[in-house]
Amino acid sequence: MQVDLNSDMGEGFGHWVMGDDAALLDVVTSANIACGFHAGDPGTMAATMARAEARGVGIGAHPGFADLQGFGRRRISLSTEELGNLVAYQLGAAQAMARRAGGRVRHLKLHGALANMASEAPEIARACYSAALAVDPEIILVVLAATPMEAVARDLGARWAGEIFADRAYEDDATLVDRRKPGAVLHDPQAAGKRMVEMLRAGAIITAGGKHIPCRIDTICVHGDSAEAVAMARGVRAHLEDAGIAVTRF
Amino acid sequence: MQVDLNSDMGEGFGHWVMGDDAALLDVVTSANIACGFHAGDPGTMAATMARAEARGVGIGAHPGFADLQGFGRRRISLSTEELGNLVAYQLGAAQAMARRAGGRVRHLKLHGALANMASEAPEIARACYSAALAVDPEIILVVLAATPMEAVARDLGARWAGEIFADRAYEDDATLVDRRKPGAVLHDPQAAGKRMVEMLRAGAIITAGGKHIPCRIDTICVHGDSAEAVAMARGVRAHLEDAGIAVTRF
Amino acid sequence: MQVDLNSDMGEGFGHWVMGDDAALLDVVTSANIACGFHAGDPGTMAATMARAEARGVGIGAHPGFADLQGFGRRRISLSTEELGNLVAYQLGAAQAMARRAGGRVRHLKLHGALANMASEAPEIARACYSAALAVDPEIILVVLAATPMEAVARDLGARWAGEIFADRAYEDDATLVDRRKPGAVLHDPQAAGKRMVEMLRAGAIITAGGKHIPCRIDTICVHGDSAEAVAMARGVRAHLEDAGIAVTRF
Amino acid sequence: MQVDLNSDMGEGFGHWVMGDDAALLDVVTSANIACGFHAGDPGTMAATMARAEARGVGIGAHPGFADLQGFGRRRISLSTEELGNLVAYQLGAAQAMARRAGGRVRHLKLHGALANMASEAPEIARACYSAALAVDPEIILVVLAATPMEAVARDLGARWAGEIFADRAYEDDATLVDRRKPGAVLHDPQAAGKRMVEMLRAGAIITAGGKHIPCRIDTICVHGDSAEAVAMARGVRAHLEDAGIAVTRF
Repeated sequence: MQVDLNSDMGEGFGHWVMGDDAALLDVVTSANIACGFHAGDPGTMAATMARAEARGVGIGAHPGFADLQGFGRRRISLSTEELGNLVAYQLGAAQAMARRAGGRVRHLKLHGALANMASEAPEIARACYSAALAVDPEIILVVLAATPMEAVARDLGARWAGEIFADRAYEDDATLVDRRKPGAVLHDPQAAGKRMVEMLRAGAIITAGGKHIPCRIDTICVHGDSAEAVAMARGVRAHLEDAGIAVTRF
Repeated sequence: MQVDLNSDMGEGFGHWVMGDDAALLDVVTSANIACGFHAGDPGTMAATMARAEARGVGIGAHPGFADLQGFGRRRISLSTEELGNLVAYQLGAAQAMARRAGGRVRHLKLHGALANMASEAPEIARACYSAALAVDPEIILVVLAATPMEAVARDLGARWAGEIFADRAYEDDATLVDRRKPGAVLHDPQAAGKRMVEMLRAGAIITAGGKHIPCRIDTICVHGDSAEAVAMARGVRAHLEDAGIAVTRF
Repeated sequence: MQVDLNSDMGEGFGHWVMGDDAALLDVVTSANIACGFHAGDPGTMAATMARAEARGVGIGAHPGFADLQGFGRRRISLSTEELGNLVAYQLGAAQAMARRAGGRVRHLKLHGALANMASEAPEIARACYSAALAVDPEIILVVLAATPMEAVARDLGARWAGEIFADRAYEDDATLVDRRKPGAVLHDPQAAGKRMVEMLRAGAIITAGGKHIPCRIDTICVHGDSAEAVAMARGVRAHLEDAGIAVTRF
Repeated sequence: MQVDLNSDMGEGFGHWVMGDDAALLDVVTSANIACGFHAGDPGTMAATMARAEARGVGIGAHPGFADLQGFGRRRISLSTEELGNLVAYQLGAAQAMARRAGGRVRHLKLHGALANMASEAPEIARACYSAALAVDPEIILVVLAATPMEAVARDLGARWAGEIFADRAYEDDATLVDRRKPGAVLHDPQAAGKRMVEMLRAGAIITAGGKHIPCRIDTICVHGDSAEAVAMARGVRAHLEDAGIAVTRF
């Protein structure tokens, strides 16, 4: 039994820093690297990719809306054609930066509001994913397990990896419990690690209400934007390994 | 005897249009397509590349400074590392957009102030070109003939194409005569075409003073930003063909 | 009887041009000048304001979303606090550019998707308008007549000007007929001018179905983005004057 | 005897944070607030100005080049007309944000590469300062004491404040010692505070070589981008007050 751990990275911009990438690179096996539109200028991308490559962490493109001020978290209504161009452009930029760093882009994960919109609307997921596949038919699409994103990836015949969150509770329809509700976010690495092991063994998302939603779980998303987040990531990894689950790239 | 005709293209941004790309695509054999930093958003790039591919015109990346307001014509002092990242990012984005349009990026030509700086300072040319080659070792670098750009391209062992201008007079050191001097810019397509034929037959830049600077001439730069410019481009092409010189992609 | 004619202006950016501002300045009495976020860099603003001031045309700020690529026509979901800051910032910038040009900003009209959203959601209109009033309590808000925008402007105790469109048909709820429906857009200056005179005399929007919606009409919006648009603007003005209606600043 | 303490502030952008503004606001009497071009989006400006106003700290506009990635520290060659528009636009935006926060912009200090260029070239200082004065003739220009910036401010008949640095050694021509030279940057708050008291009492910059350059010293620049910097600022303030020098707004 094995699983990948992924995290967003390279989310600084110019002189601004965000998150503790160096710490995270010792924990995760796949890095979703910002592509310059919501974060991550070319210099930050180059440095982050070089570090990921040096540690054997898989390089992924993490495209988002062209919105530095909103960090890609504000919804922008684009046509499907605009969405496809947005994703293709950023993926291509990431491929070039990876090539220069001696590596290559293995996977793609949508960021922020773009990911939220794609997880709700299959036509948005399709516009983004088909553009990515036109650029690289072998790219692995990281999709939220058991959502329309997964259905679109399957339908496109793409390689894909199903993702669950280490620190978020799930509703019975496989969506995340609203952050404002009690219990929506887990803070205890032990509890989070235990829950991940249960889901991996069950081959299913286990919801807050206890329901099992069978799905393929290839990767677990962890965060690195605070010391607490890094501790959580480390705790989850340790717990997985203690349970005999290999943490390795998808 | 043969030569390529190249022109900048895809220089609109969003709702703004610049130049008559449709007319130019019937005249030139290579298109230098803006990559989103000084002009050319992803949608404009996609449309321009699809049209170039449909007409059999060679697709080139045309990276510039990140300066939409200044159209990439204002000098920005970047480190060589920043320059390399700037070029690699834009080239990668262009490659992805070209792939999606069913084509591929064959050549790279620097834009505006970045090109001016690279033609003066070999270390700037080297930073830009070595980054491009790290992304694609087969890319053809379009260099100003008989300048430090050419020397750097040769030194890097790159494929390159030497370029001269259809409508500009040359000084004896192979630089362009300052636009403010009389005779610096040619306006008569006949005169320009005749001069091009002479240079191609001589295998040399012929300066305003009549000096011959032997050099490899692979491509002639024409413009499309006005009706007069398009007429000039057409006139030069007709003159070349009348003289028995094949106009074809380098 | 009198009315103002307003038009968007200064919608170029850097080297890109849009619309025929010079022609429009001979027709309109108020100019809505882009503030740098969706169009109109500082240089374009300076030049446009100087020309407007020289012709005695009223200067207005025309703030929009920070979206050059989309020309401010794509909806972006911002908090009301973000909306207020967006409008205040652009208004302040416009005031400074106007002061330097020897004039001052008299009015404010929201642009594109921001205007559409404000015309549908009173809380969005309120966020934008209250921010503008905090910057200048005397500013005249240009609102779509008989919409929530007008209601909010009244409720805030602001000075306001009610606006109708010269070239668009109206639904019975005072919204514009969808552009895709036949008859939605008028192309004949005579017909448009005649309709404007009827509405002004009736003191009401007259809908496509013939319904009268009584409202205060202070200004008529015309366009200048094409030769046809400029001809329409001229025709409407001529028709108004022939009918004895003075065209003058609100 | 009295002096002002100033510091750059509001240098975050969107979700990115820079420096410890809260700590600095307890130390300084004037805040140079980034205006959105090199740092400081409208939301950050609004929050920073509200906090400065609440603490009685003087609000200043701190315009820089339009270069988020380079944090305004990369030289961009603009015409004097472009420079004037750049400064006027940002000053106007800052004025509006200050007005909304219940305050007003009292001073203006150029940022980064723009400041460096203005301190070397009087025509650049003049373009920036005359634009600012056209927007607000009463604005206080913060100039590097005994440099061309001061000469231009005097020549324009402007209100101005002469500034020295708490932590930098001076050459005999009143320029700063290159950071790469030993002793260029002071790290000991005691030593820095002592040196400031000496300069204030002498009414002169005292250079590394011991030379006295008589000048008006109205304000001392301190930094807040690290814990060490904040400790330095606090130490300098304590030292000044212990020496009987009142720390108060210019």
